[in-house]
Amino acid sequence: MAPFTDRLRTIQAAQNSLLCIGLDTDITKLPPHLSHTSEGVLEFNKRLIDATCDLVCAYKLNLAFYEALGERGWWVLNETRKHIPSSVIAIADGKRGDIGNSSDLYARSLINELRFDASTVHPYMGRDSLEPFFRTPEHGVFVLVLTSNPGARDFQYLKAGGKPLYEQVILRVKRWNTHRNIGLVAGATRPAQLKRIRLLAPHLPLLIPGVGAQGGDLKRAVQYGCDTHGFLAIINAGRNVIYASAGEDFAGAARSAAQAMRDQINGYRDSPTH
Amino acid sequence: MAPFTDRLRTIQAAQNSLLCIGLDTDITKLPPHLSHTSEGVLEFNKRLIDATCDLVCAYKLNLAFYEALGERGWWVLNETRKHIPSSVIAIADGKRGDIGNSSDLYARSLINELRFDASTVHPYMGRDSLEPFFRTPEHGVFVLVLTSNPGARDFQYLKAGGKPLYEQVILRVKRWNTHRNIGLVAGATRPAQLKRIRLLAPHLPLLIPGVGAQGGDLKRAVQYGCDTHGFLAIINAGRNVIYASAGEDFAGAARSAAQAMRDQINGYRDSPTH
Repeated sequence: MAPFTDRLRTIQAAQNSLLCIGLDTDITKLPPHLSHTSEGVLEFNKRLIDATCDLVCAYKLNLAFYEALGERGWWVLNETRKHIPSSVIAIADGKRGDIGNSSDLYARSLINELRFDASTVHPYMGRDSLEPFFRTPEHGVFVLVLTSNPGARDFQYLKAGGKPLYEQVILRVKRWNTHRNIGLVAGATRPAQLKRIRLLAPHLPLLIPGVGAQGGDLKRAVQYGCDTHGFLAIINAGRNVIYASAGEDFAGAARSAAQAMRDQINGYRDSPTH
Repeated sequence: MAPFTDRLRTIQAAQNSLLCIGLDTDITKLPPHLSHTSEGVLEFNKRLIDATCDLVCAYKLNLAFYEALGERGWWVLNETRKHIPSSVIAIADGKRGDIGNSSDLYARSLINELRFDASTVHPYMGRDSLEPFFRTPEHGVFVLVLTSNPGARDFQYLKAGGKPLYEQVILRVKRWNTHRNIGLVAGATRPAQLKRIRLLAPHLPLLIPGVGAQGGDLKRAVQYGCDTHGFLAIINAGRNVIYASAGEDFAGAARSAAQAMRDQINGYRDSPTH
């Protein structure tokens, strides 16, 4: 199978979409007509996927939302993942990072058992903590670089060796990317830095959360996040899409919201600024 | 209930032990007479806890080993945790770290559902990513500072504002510690730095992995890791104890190994160097 970066580009071209939908399904926010149980969460996810899978390049599942379901969480996660067609990328957003033997188990579980196409990881523990994820070329690994939350300022901007820490992370990640399968997580809430990140890493996939509820500017996320060919930015949309309607028409409403957003993104792709 | 730091001190005094056993149970390493299933892992854990719970101040469960069990992982984790008596601390070693609403779910799951007494977290995403863990005073939060793996050198030693990054993490963590429930993870494989960390944070609990299989020096881990009263260092022992014997006598052998290690630690506590 092709290295992750090549596959991502192929999928984005075939789907004509950079949109990723975050299936961060909160059991307390399900439409009232669905059962507020693990089965209800799975039903909600499946109907969202059926309604939107021709409009996206990826789905991202934040593992916190599945762990919150307790004993049934793994089952919902596994069944949801199996429902995602192979025409798009399935991302496990678990922000893992641990010493070698533990990281090995996390990687095996997400890559070999649940068969996710990509994962998110924390850089703090360094290369050997990420190696078990890197070593499968067809599996994408998105390393946290500059996150979309306020606390990003606590450490990520610290000047280390004349550069902000997040740039030091990028420099190392580029060296580690021998299998062409590593990408970066860079929040849409920091457009100036996003532009700089794309400049520093012209060929790496960027997973870009933070548009919508978190307030990031979509236009700049697309224009700064894409490579020079208008690819390799993955724009994540969460609550705006999956909760577009709180009623029985939730899947249709999500489809409309996703379609509008995909088209808006494609409009911005046509006028790159760099 | 008392803030975590006070409770830890009380428990370490009552148990006369700084030893923590890492219940990182690998299903492939179970003794041959136990069933190599989730039930077997739980049986192994319960018998280890029964055999050692008067000798330790804590058990640490690395969540990777439970996630590796798939659908039954949560059940084994939950049942194991319930088997840990309230006379000792149960630590969920999941190295979490995510934006606010996701971190909230992780914290709720580990604190309110599984009822762990403490968790480990990644600092990279900053304060708001950790706040959901900090806000429960009786819950301990161990922030990764200087880890025991080789990759610690990639970022943790980077000079940022005249100090290594890990010291910058300590400075902030001390400011955030308004509930007296935050501690640090500092590997025994870096004794000189461990000494410095205790100097910078004289009153914080230190969770110290890396003795045993990873090669850290026990004597220095204890002497540098303890506070001036000989408390607040939690010395984690993993494979050396839980796999002390591969046979039917595994629990008895683990007890002997734990007892020897507890006594050795207590011997070193009596001769602090600072």
